[in-house]
Amino acid sequence: MKRYGVIMAGGNGSRFWPLGRKERPKQLLNLSGKDLMINETLKRLSFCIEKENLMIVTNVSQASLMEEETKEWVKKENILSEPAARNTAACIGYAAMEILRKHGDGIMCILPSDQFVKDEEEFVRVMEAAIVTAEETDGLVTIGICPTFPATGYGYIKSKEGSRTPIGDKNMKNYSIVEEFVEKPDKETAQIYLEKGGYLWNSGMFVWKASTILSYMERLLPDVYSCLQEIGKDMGTDREQETIERVYPAIPKISIDYGIMERADHVLVIPAEFGWNDIGSLDMLTLMKEADEKGNVSYGETVFEDCEGSILYAADKLVAAVGMKDVIVVQTKDAVLVCPKDKAQDVKKLTERLEATGKERYL
Amino acid sequence: MKRYGVIMAGGNGSRFWPLGRKERPKQLLNLSGKDLMINETLKRLSFCIEKENLMIVTNVSQASLMEEETKEWVKKENILSEPAARNTAACIGYAAMEILRKHGDGIMCILPSDQFVKDEEEFVRVMEAAIVTAEETDGLVTIGICPTFPATGYGYIKSKEGSRTPIGDKNMKNYSIVEEFVEKPDKETAQIYLEKGGYLWNSGMFVWKASTILSYMERLLPDVYSCLQEIGKDMGTDREQETIERVYPAIPKISIDYGIMERADHVLVIPAEFGWNDIGSLDMLTLMKEADEKGNVSYGETVFEDCEGSILYAADKLVAAVGMKDVIVVQTKDAVLVCPKDKAQDVKKLTERLEATGKERYL
Repeated sequence: MKRYGVIMAGGNGSRFWPLGRKERPKQLLNLSGKDLMINETLKRLSFCIEKENLMIVTNVSQASLMEEETKEWVKKENILSEPAARNTAACIGYAAMEILRKHGDGIMCILPSDQFVKDEEEFVRVMEAAIVTAEETDGLVTIGICPTFPATGYGYIKSKEGSRTPIGDKNMKNYSIVEEFVEKPDKETAQIYLEKGGYLWNSGMFVWKASTILSYMERLLPDVYSCLQEIGKDMGTDREQETIERVYPAIPKISIDYGIMERADHVLVIPAEFGWNDIGSLDMLTLMKEADEKGNVSYGETVFEDCEGSILYAADKLVAAVGMKDVIVVQTKDAVLVCPKDKAQDVKKLTERLEATGKERYL
Repeated sequence: MKRYGVIMAGGNGSRFWPLGRKERPKQLLNLSGKDLMINETLKRLSFCIEKENLMIVTNVSQASLMEEETKEWVKKENILSEPAARNTAACIGYAAMEILRKHGDGIMCILPSDQFVKDEEEFVRVMEAAIVTAEETDGLVTIGICPTFPATGYGYIKSKEGSRTPIGDKNMKNYSIVEEFVEKPDKETAQIYLEKGGYLWNSGMFVWKASTILSYMERLLPDVYSCLQEIGKDMGTDREQETIERVYPAIPKISIDYGIMERADHVLVIPAEFGWNDIGSLDMLTLMKEADEKGNVSYGETVFEDCEGSILYAADKLVAAVGMKDVIVVQTKDAVLVCPKDKAQDVKKLTERLEATGKERYL
């Protein structure tokens, strides 16, 4: 069966301000010093999926920049533009319908655009195992990350005890049946999950047939499905664009996790260990670069004087810190942000305040 | 007797980086939103000294900018340029010689260029009292600030018990005889000084006759004095500039405190309370502007999200802080500095590092 890579790249990533901006969100930033984050994701996926089957779902306002920046990896007609943000069920359903109507059925490997993966070879092995599993079981397959610390920023997947099943013939991977998805825990609960075992981080990576996810949607999210069907009917016709613009904004807003994964009866999870992190907030910049002996990470022209565990990002000025611990400093062409690492999530509040106080030009 | 105001403005103020720069040190910055610091000092002094007798001693590299920026207050020939930095004894001796040779004797009121004074009327009353005292006693008069907290950043002046003497006829001020000058104390010692009483902060403000300080120099700093005499001999002649350039760099480097004040036998101090602070480091920016209800001080376009006691200085970008406490953030045209308030002194170390690592262009 043909394989398709689907990158979900519609987010604004307001926790990444001032690096991520409305007109250039974090997935279009080069944080590793190698390539844009989305291109690194595409490259990683290209080891198991033919380049011409790589797809991106983004929003209309980002589409043309996205086309330009990813043209080495994705052909123009494979960039789907959502006329409105309708959460992940709509986004995935739209891509599934596109595959089913334009190419016949196929396996979809769905990935967020902003993830960090350390061991790319292991990533490919896990993805291959997921593809085989989705093909052989016709199930909903998700990748669960073996936790390395009691994270409170991720949801968890609990796998059913004794359900472990080897994948393929010579493949050394296993899948388990998912018992339940659990919300982001507090610190104590996260510690318990880590000690008990059998809990994995929900990575937001999914593998399944286009036909499978659509039939789940038909059953569990009939309102979403009927909109998708209306769009699907006109796909490949002159009316396609017009129908999408009309119907898409009416799709109910619901996430794939809440709408399908948590309610479907037979979800499979493949435990993975490839040095994964969600690049959700600025403190994650520490992952993208080698730190010095005091744990400081530097982008651009910076000076650390008696600092520890800090991140300095200098776009086009000198950024210097004296006596700071575990702090993030980001300088961009028009803004400077300073924030303790452990409050990186609160940058979202700041962007809300900028919006509320007439400073949208900085977003 | 004629009165002269002498502003010492030769410093680079490396603790004020990146606001203060080699080509524009802190005394040439407008931090109050009203005027340059040096012009505020000149204005303050102009209430007791005729404008045409206001003088500045600076270094050659700053002289032309100084001329330009202070022209409203100081005439060009009253700006003395030191061809080399030789500490405060040389600087004050040079000004004293200039006054003596070019104008006959006079009272010199010597002030640093970078001080904050809250109560300007009281400042004028104290200065008048100091002038009267210097004239009547022919002594070395210094202004001692009544301490308001156990400061460790200032030297202290201990006044002799029972030496308090009223000044002038109707004047309500007193002077005391100085028992000793003491070095910057540690926290505990500073606390003891505060509790014991009779200890004043050494403000670096001096009032005396030009002839008096020169005769003290002749006795206590004969090497400094002989250089000054050589310069004085050629003052007002064609050779003046050449002699200064040749002799000045050879003057022994010694401070007026160490060379004269601590060793002279009859030094007088006038206790003063006019809301004084030395603007020595960036944490002093809190004095220059009204703080918000959480003690945050803002210059330029800034946003505080859940911050306390912090200073944000934005020259031409948006400067935003999230969850920071007691921190200083300064953004200038080419640099950004982040530093905790209580480590503001260490900015000097940073500038040394910039110098040592080939980044002098930022100084």
